[in-house]
Amino acid sequence: MMGHASLLDCPLCQTIGGVLLWQGPQFRVIDAADPAYPGFTRVVWTAHVVEMTDLSAPEQLAMMRAVFLVESVQRKILQPHKINLAAFGNVVPHLHWHIIPRWEDDLHFPAPVWAAAPQHDAPAQAALDARKTAVASRLPAYHLALQQALG
Amino acid sequence: MMGHASLLDCPLCQTIGGVLLWQGPQFRVIDAADPAYPGFTRVVWTAHVVEMTDLSAPEQLAMMRAVFLVESVQRKILQPHKINLAAFGNVVPHLHWHIIPRWEDDLHFPAPVWAAAPQHDAPAQAALDARKTAVASRLPAYHLALQQALG
Repeated sequence: MMGHASLLDCPLCQTIGGVLLWQGPQFRVIDAADPAYPGFTRVVWTAHVVEMTDLSAPEQLAMMRAVFLVESVQRKILQPHKINLAAFGNVVPHLHWHIIPRWEDDLHFPAPVWAAAPQHDAPAQAALDARKTAVASRLPAYHLALQQALG
Repeated sequence: MMGHASLLDCPLCQTIGGVLLWQGPQFRVIDAADPAYPGFTRVVWTAHVVEMTDLSAPEQLAMMRAVFLVESVQRKILQPHKINLAAFGNVVPHLHWHIIPRWEDDLHFPAPVWAAAPQHDAPAQAALDARKTAVASRLPAYHLALQQALG
């Protein structure tokens, strides 16, 4: 593993990286504040480690429990069509998980959100905007439920 | 959760979905046989479930242990720059994980492998091809180590 950012260069060591929803000693939960994807949430490990296999087994379990707790609250409150989970770290090699609620009418579905976005015609765009607004209206309830679940 | 494929329509219920490396009662491990990404491996849950939170806690743990075991063997034998982990299921809503070894010269780096591929000039393409060939030559050792680790 070469060329990874030092702590001083690492945006997830130097900044929150989103809107802080919950902070514990091992990890924090942030809203990614992605305008195309209301509810897009990240779990960020506090220490600057790169890969899941850099964690001990109990740490891996704690991290994945948080990821699955976010998934569970997204399913309950936001009721998406599908959940997407990913840990890449190619750009920011500081361990973090993406938990993304997906809808069949969203910008990239069924492709991952990192794919090139296909064109939407005006009626499809209007439907997408209306659905996004409806999801955004549930974000306060989602964030509250997350915070309660994280304890 | 609406519109998910039935078992009869599900390619991961009806086919292996790649080159079978290991099969247990709960999950199987397959080589994705992606020509751009030698070593791209998937862990596929045997039963037709959609989300990680459809599994019990012990099942989640078994699945993630397998994913991290694949990551660990990839790091040891293939020595990539980074590991990418993802579970989407937007196209095939049958629980499966992608474990992808990434290199700084690969087709999409630092973007996820599902992004649009940037153009590579001829020297970069030749270097990429040479590195891919070197990785491909380590696949038998990688597959053997995986099978030994899975027991």
